[in-house]
Amino acid sequence: MKIKKPTIIVDEERVRKNVERMAKKAQKSGLRFRPHFKTHQSADIGEIFKEFGISVIAASSIDMAAYFAKHDWKDITVAIPVNIRQIDEINELASKISLGLLVESIQSAKFLAENVLSSINVWVEIDTGDRRTGVDWKNTEKIESIATIIKESGNLSLSGILTHAGQSYEKESIEAVKKVHRDSISQMNAVKDYLSSKGFIDIEISIGDTPTCSIMDDFSGVDEIRPGNFVFNDLLQVSIGSCVEEDIAIAVACPVISKHPERNELIIYGGGAHLSRDSLERDGAQFFGLVALPTSMGWTSSMKNACVTKIVQEHGTIQAERDFIDRISPGDLLMILPIHSCLTANLHQTYQTLNGKILKSFHYEIE
Amino acid sequence: MKIKKPTIIVDEERVRKNVERMAKKAQKSGLRFRPHFKTHQSADIGEIFKEFGISVIAASSIDMAAYFAKHDWKDITVAIPVNIRQIDEINELASKISLGLLVESIQSAKFLAENVLSSINVWVEIDTGDRRTGVDWKNTEKIESIATIIKESGNLSLSGILTHAGQSYEKESIEAVKKVHRDSISQMNAVKDYLSSKGFIDIEISIGDTPTCSIMDDFSGVDEIRPGNFVFNDLLQVSIGSCVEEDIAIAVACPVISKHPERNELIIYGGGAHLSRDSLERDGAQFFGLVALPTSMGWTSSMKNACVTKIVQEHGTIQAERDFIDRISPGDLLMILPIHSCLTANLHQTYQTLNGKILKSFHYEIE
Repeated sequence: MKIKKPTIIVDEERVRKNVERMAKKAQKSGLRFRPHFKTHQSADIGEIFKEFGISVIAASSIDMAAYFAKHDWKDITVAIPVNIRQIDEINELASKISLGLLVESIQSAKFLAENVLSSINVWVEIDTGDRRTGVDWKNTEKIESIATIIKESGNLSLSGILTHAGQSYEKESIEAVKKVHRDSISQMNAVKDYLSSKGFIDIEISIGDTPTCSIMDDFSGVDEIRPGNFVFNDLLQVSIGSCVEEDIAIAVACPVISKHPERNELIIYGGGAHLSRDSLERDGAQFFGLVALPTSMGWTSSMKNACVTKIVQEHGTIQAERDFIDRISPGDLLMILPIHSCLTANLHQTYQTLNGKILKSFHYEIE
Repeated sequence: MKIKKPTIIVDEERVRKNVERMAKKAQKSGLRFRPHFKTHQSADIGEIFKEFGISVIAASSIDMAAYFAKHDWKDITVAIPVNIRQIDEINELASKISLGLLVESIQSAKFLAENVLSSINVWVEIDTGDRRTGVDWKNTEKIESIATIIKESGNLSLSGILTHAGQSYEKESIEAVKKVHRDSISQMNAVKDYLSSKGFIDIEISIGDTPTCSIMDDFSGVDEIRPGNFVFNDLLQVSIGSCVEEDIAIAVACPVISKHPERNELIIYGGGAHLSRDSLERDGAQFFGLVALPTSMGWTSSMKNACVTKIVQEHGTIQAERDFIDRISPGDLLMILPIHSCLTANLHQTYQTLNGKILKSFHYEIE
């Protein structure tokens, strides 16, 4: 790899394995697999998904959906409560592709019913414990009101109910993640049964976080899964138990610019502007990434007792054992494994593959 | 302001005041003012600095320096230890402008001495307590060795010694920041005296963090200041005492997409991808920004008892008092004041001014 500055490196074979594993799982369970493309945000990486027959996706903004529509994706759900200020862009996009939107307020449902000009699939977002967005699953009255507004409108059609059990990210055991999943599915089915008793038929259930989708095998009562992070994975997913380190498909190659053996530190050119400021804790101490060495095939396993302990805009501080420090000089490259791959990838306009190819992301196209 | 999605808004008049204040202070003290452009990263915002006679700047990467060189800046210091992997780019840039580089290892000094093809100004970076990069100010032997390598090389010329007293960012009182400054200046002058005793003459002293440059009035013993953040300021600078909230010159306009009065929360479309994940603490709780309302002139003061309490990639959660929540609906815009303006600005390719003009940043030009 000829790398001169902080560069996000993607191991396409690991991506392929991660996509294949999830695609097969969905197929085996008879689920629609709608991967969330907010993690990689790249039409070039999207091509790998096509190898596995995937044709429907999720995106996290209207602009990102428009970017993927331009790259020939024809069925996209924007999996965030609709931003009604972008109604013009929504109408434009809906005239070109099969567009799905999320609604979780009566006001936004009414706004869409009045302002949408062509057919749009609507999902009612349900909160099954994440406490971020969505109507509380117990609030069936509000869910029914929103469903009714959608049903009675001309251009909106009710696809079903959708949830993101993001609380799974806060679990650190597989058993706890499984419980999140089971509770969430049971709540979603209770909502579906309620809607069915009120005459809403063919209500689908869509779920979508990487921890539950990676860990679970039983998806009964679910029609669609929308995980995103699994394409790259990261140290957070390793800590939850959704994957092992060898499943992490990206690393940020960073040049060493300074060495301070007297305090067991190396400084890399690579900071919050390249890695993001997400962190995890180990032995009570916060860290921002683990450290591997580049190889001809990608990168090694992470070094024991070495991690990124501090980051500012352009610099990262690595604490490591003295014998590791002694082997490294300014000008050497280190590979940083990310804590949260979505936000790390979001900082880059392009990826470099292990054989030096450049893959473009959404941010490569000017706003 | 016609804003549809998360957009960084810049108040040019506040920028102008912030630049003027620092420029006048530098002029009064007879200092060279070399503002660090890593905060705004924008050639368009750079034009405001030209109104105040500023012609020399700092940047945080060779690429950023090349961008500003293309926009007609002729004297740029890259204020991070030199990344020797970019020697070709360094040589290209040095053939066009007056380029300054930082060196803090014998190895990098030797590498430059052997590989540089045209004249370059070199600063030896000194650590006066930040413990990030730089030679410890007490290690005069190493400082002298580096200075000697530079002096004996053909193309390198020794401009002086440079420090970034970044430890000032961890202080929360003006007195503590003043002590950081005084200690740092006294250490830098001890290094200068030592070098002078060894025959190194005309050694300049360059310092450069916003807290000390904003708070101090006495800069005796200093030749150059390189603050960056002051152009925009942020809540971190307010917490340190370097500025007041009315000096903050950027805010991120974010549409409200969800409302949960039962838990006193609003959800905005605007997350780690737009605000960055920097945080501060208030009453023991972490927060990621304060909340203001848009006005025809910019934005109001921050709302009391309202702040961004959680952020993920695209969503931000705002906790606020019930009467504020009740006034806001999905589709409304809120203005988020940033914790750390450098990393917030780094996430955007363009700024929008209060009268709707678009200012381009470094990230607007493809990597």
